[in-house]
This record gives sequence, C-alpha cells and structure tokens, in this order.
Amino acid sequence: MRSLFAYQQRAEAVLVRYFDELPDRLLPAGGRWPARTVELLRELTLRGGKRLRAAVVHAAAGLVTDADVPGLDSAVLGVELLHTHGLVHDDIIDDAATRRGGPSTHHAYRAEVAEPQARNLAILAGDLAAFLSVQAVLDAPVPAALRHAMAAVLSRASADAVLGQILDLERDATPQAGPGFLDLVTDYKSARYSILAPLRLGLLAAGAEPGDHDEQLRRYAWHAGIYEQMRDDYLDLFGDEGRTGKPVGGDIRAGRRTYVVRALLEAPGTRELLLPALGDPAVAPGAVARLRERAIELGVARRLRETIRSHAEAASAEAAAWGWWRTEGVAFFCDLPLVNMDRIG
Amino acid sequence: MRSLFAYQQRAEAVLVRYFDELPDRLLPAGGRWPARTVELLRELTLRGGKRLRAAVVHAAAGLVTDADVPGLDSAVLGVELLHTHGLVHDDIIDDAATRRGGPSTHHAYRAEVAEPQARNLAILAGDLAAFLSVQAVLDAPVPAALRHAMAAVLSRASADAVLGQILDLERDATPQAGPGFLDLVTDYKSARYSILAPLRLGLLAAGAEPGDHDEQLRRYAWHAGIYEQMRDDYLDLFGDEGRTGKPVGGDIRAGRRTYVVRALLEAPGTRELLLPALGDPAVAPGAVARLRERAIELGVARRLRETIRSHAEAASAEAAAWGWWRTEGVAFFCDLPLVNMDRIG
Repeated sequence: MRSLFAYQQRAEAVLVRYFDELPDRLLPAGGRWPARTVELLRELTLRGGKRLRAAVVHAAAGLVTDADVPGLDSAVLGVELLHTHGLVHDDIIDDAATRRGGPSTHHAYRAEVAEPQARNLAILAGDLAAFLSVQAVLDAPVPAALRHAMAAVLSRASADAVLGQILDLERDATPQAGPGFLDLVTDYKSARYSILAPLRLGLLAAGAEPGDHDEQLRRYAWHAGIYEQMRDDYLDLFGDEGRTGKPVGGDIRAGRRTYVVRALLEAPGTRELLLPALGDPAVAPGAVARLRERAIELGVARRLRETIRSHAEAASAEAAAWGWWRTEGVAFFCDLPLVNMDRIG
Repeated sequence: MRSLFAYQQRAEAVLVRYFDELPDRLLPAGGRWPARTVELLRELTLRGGKRLRAAVVHAAAGLVTDADVPGLDSAVLGVELLHTHGLVHDDIIDDAATRRGGPSTHHAYRAEVAEPQARNLAILAGDLAAFLSVQAVLDAPVPAALRHAMAAVLSRASADAVLGQILDLERDATPQAGPGFLDLVTDYKSARYSILAPLRLGLLAAGAEPGDHDEQLRRYAWHAGIYEQMRDDYLDLFGDEGRTGKPVGGDIRAGRRTYVVRALLEAPGTRELLLPALGDPAVAPGAVARLRERAIELGVARRLRETIRSHAEAASAEAAAWGWWRTEGVAFFCDLPLVNMDRIG
C-alpha cells in the first residue's frame, strides 16, 4: 500500500491541471454564471479526500504492467468527476449543508441566490459534472477504440449509480427491505462505480480485457463495496466522533435504512429504542448514546463487525486468487479491503 | 420536406423498440422504483412531437448519400434521450406540471410519492436519461472510431446545453441582458444540441468529416436555432391559443426575459403595461390581451416578425451555399427554417 499516497498526489495534480484548463475550452463567450458553476465544481472536486477510486484505476493497470500507460489520468478524471456529479445531486436529495468539510454545492449557491434558484443551479452543476466526466475519458490520449471502451465502462457505471440512488430511496421507503436488497443497493449505488469501473478502466488502459475475468472482478467489487458501505454505516453509530468529524447517529436521525439500522430493528432490545428515534432529526444525543450502548451490550455491534470482516476477507481472498496477474499488482487488491479494518476495532 | 413524416415514423419505431428492450438489459434484479423511472422516461420520450432532431440526423446523412447508413438510429436515440434529460430537469427547474400534453416527470412522481421525494426521483430520472443518451451512441453498430466521434459530439453538445440552461437562469436574473446575450443563451441552450449536434452526427455516420465545414454548420445552427427560439417566444404572446394549446403570455407570467419580453421592455408604450405583469403568475388575461394589442399597434410584433424572418432566411441562404454536398440533400436544410414561418403570419 506504499503507493497509495503517490496515487493520491498524482490524482490531485491531474485534477488541478484539468480545472485550470477547463474554463478556456468550455465556457461561453458571455455570462458569469457558467464560470461560477465551474468554480464550485472545482472546489468540491479538489476537496476530495482519499482518492480511492483514482488509486484503484492505477493499481488495476499495475495488475498488468508496472509501466506508466497512457489513459490512466483520463480515467481518474472520469471517475472523480462522476463522483462529483453524484455528490452534488446527492446533497440536493439529502438537503445536506456540508460535504467534505465545506458547503455542499447546493448550499454554496444558497449563500448567493434565493431558492429555488440555488437548487436549480445545483441540479445543473451536477448535470455538467456528469457530461464532463464522460468527455474526460473520450478525450483520453489513446486510440479511439480504447477511448470508446473506457467511455462504455464509465457510462454504464454512471447509469448503474443512478439506479442505485433510486434503489436507495426505495430502501428508505420500504421498512421491510431485507439484507439481500441492501446488498443490491450497495452494489449499484457504490461498488459498481467506485470499485468495479475503476478496476475495468485501469485494466483497459493497460491493454487487458476486463471481460476475460468479469465474474472475478464483479465478486471482488461486490464484497469490497459492501465492506466499505457497512463500515461507514457502522462508524456512523459506533465510530469515534473525534475521528469521523460528525455526531454519531446521523443515519438514524435521517431515517436511513442502513445495514446498522436494519440490525437494530431486528434485535429485540434495540428495536424499541430505535423506533422513536428513527427519522427524527431532533432526537436527543442521550437517546442515541443509550441505543449505542444497548447495541454493544446485546452483541449487535459485534455481529455487525463480524459481517463487515467477512466481506473484507472475502474480497481479499478473491484478489489472492488472481494468479493470472502480476503478484506485485495483486497485493494492492488483497490489502485494500483490510486497510481500514482497524477503524472498526 | 416530403421525408419529414418518414423520419418521424422511423424515430418513433426506433424509440419504441429501444424502450421495449431497455428494462431487460438495464434494470437491477430487485426493487420496483428503477422500473418505474424507466417507464416514466419512456412515456415522456414517446409523447414527443415533431422529432425535428431525428429528422436533422437523417437529413444530414442525406447531404452525403441517399443510402441508409448504419448508426443513424443510434444517433437519433442519443439526441432524443438527451432531450428527455433536458425536459425532465427543466420541468423541475420551472416547477412545470405538464409537458407534451401529459404530466411532467416531476408531477407524475408527485401523484405517487410526497415531496421532496418526488423531486428527488425526478432529478435521478433526468440523470438516468443523460447517461442512457451517451450509451446509445456508444452502442451504435459502427466501428469504434465512429462511435467515439459520435459520443464526443453528443457529450460536448450535452455540456453546452447545460451551460445554456445556466445562462438562461442568469438571463432571467439580469434585467439588462442585451440582444447579444439572448442569442448566446439560445445558441447554447438549444441550437447546439437541437441542430448542430444532429447535423454533425448524421454527417459522421455518413462518413463525412463535419470539421471540414465547421464554420458553415455553426452559422446554420445559430440562425436556425435563434429563428426557432424567437418564433416560440413570439407565439407565446402573439400566437393562437387554439393552435399552441396554452394560454398566451406564459413567458410574461413566469418572468422569463425572452426576445419578446425584451422587445416589449424597450418599446415606450408597452414597457409600462409589461412591468406590472412580468413575473406575476396571477396577472389577469385582460391585461395580457391589452399588452398584446398595444404591441401590435405600436409595431413591436411586426418588428419581431421581421427579425425572425431574417434569421430563417439567413439559415436558408447558408444552406443554399453548401455546393459541396448533394443538391437533394441540401434542399431539406434550405426548407427547414421556412417551414413554420406561416405560423407567425
């Protein structure tokens, strides 16, 4: 995992250069609002943190070669801009004020113009990021057939992510959604564009045909994606506020039917404490603390940790079997799901 | 123009087949909401009217050959789905209840779920249409280099259309926007994706290089696009309610700074009547009728008609000079801007 930092640095540099050059080739000859939109997309995109998607793109190429192949920077731009698109629209949907330690695009606009104009501009900002994402891979400095293949991967992942967001809303409106449904939501709304697509893009750029090992890649992305989602859900209630930077229980207050919420609903002893709090933005911190304590006492937290760990280990084992790729390259994917396991204790 | 009806028929058939096959290859294995989204996109798309974009795609290929070249149906899908994307988000932005004689996607959802869920689902429906649009041209049954070129044209037009929507909001918030700014808005929000991109896509599919005559195509799209926008703006106030199917003065009530509103603001004698009505949804029909009458008496309507006609004629003359293409093909583009001129009298 030594190279994770190097991948992050490179992604930052690529994104900065992209946004430096974008206004000249994109913006109309008049008006000020389009430029402001691009500024806000820049700010949100550059506030990004771990750049795990970018790392997966590079590491996927590393499965095939240790050479620096062309097209990886474009793939990174594509997945990061797609992520920006998702964040902008997601924050409208959740009416979220902050994102990545700054204002959400919607709320940044709200400081400048009245509603509904602020929301309308945020919708359009998200739309713009979506189309810029596709353009970024179409502009990759590689042969047209490869550009085409990369764009096909990215646009399919984009559509899947939107379907995942729709499933996510359905989940929150469907109290009886079972564990299989939650896994499906996670696969569509997150694993496919955050793990599977970056994997495929890096392999394509390195000259490999991801379709040759499609089942294996899908299984890896499925387990790694569910692991990451469950871990985030877990930390939302059981995490250290000082480390996550937000008050515990946000998902409960928002009424989200996360993996944790489902587990609490299913366990006698936590269900009664959860129900009055679920979806109540004004629930007292003490009530959340009692719920959390009770869930730990009753073993709900432990059972969640076990499931999370089993997904991380399944992903790692999946990658360990990729004998047809470079051993040094495979190591990254074995380690990736385990790297943040310590955070859940 | 004899073939316009044939182009429409073919576009309808292509869209129906596309939406018949879409669920099987797109939808997740669980959940019901994604399927509902696809249904609503289907309903809105198939309620489309003139299919002028589709006609331009086919007619552009006809500039080069009278053979039925592959890829045209995919280009038609691309531009029509992009248009659907724009309509869905536009109707959220305008809070419009109806579109194409049926409910807007936002309001169709509102009949099924509460706000803000209805709006959120409509945002996601529009996003899905955007990515399906790109996918449609990426799936064209043509060589990868051509698929790539078509996707590049479409995604650039998509980004321009979003920038045009942003400029459109800026226009309505900028009382002093001059005629040059209005033309810029029209070019971005409409001409580029409704005329220029379909032209380029048809030419590409027919094996031509649109870049060889880029300036000419841009000028044509500019004039034809402004002509169509001005004509629509004109009919909004001066049109026949029985023919347009909506009450006159909608743009005035909504406070849109259209070409007509700008002309009324600039003319002494109409400005005073316009100002109290502009942006007032509850303005009396009588007040709009008086404004309309006064605008006719003072020659405002006549001067608008002259400008509209001059753009139609400039577009037509531009096409007439395309001596390097098939004469039979060029005729379509000479006629196109003149075909609805009779509606403005």
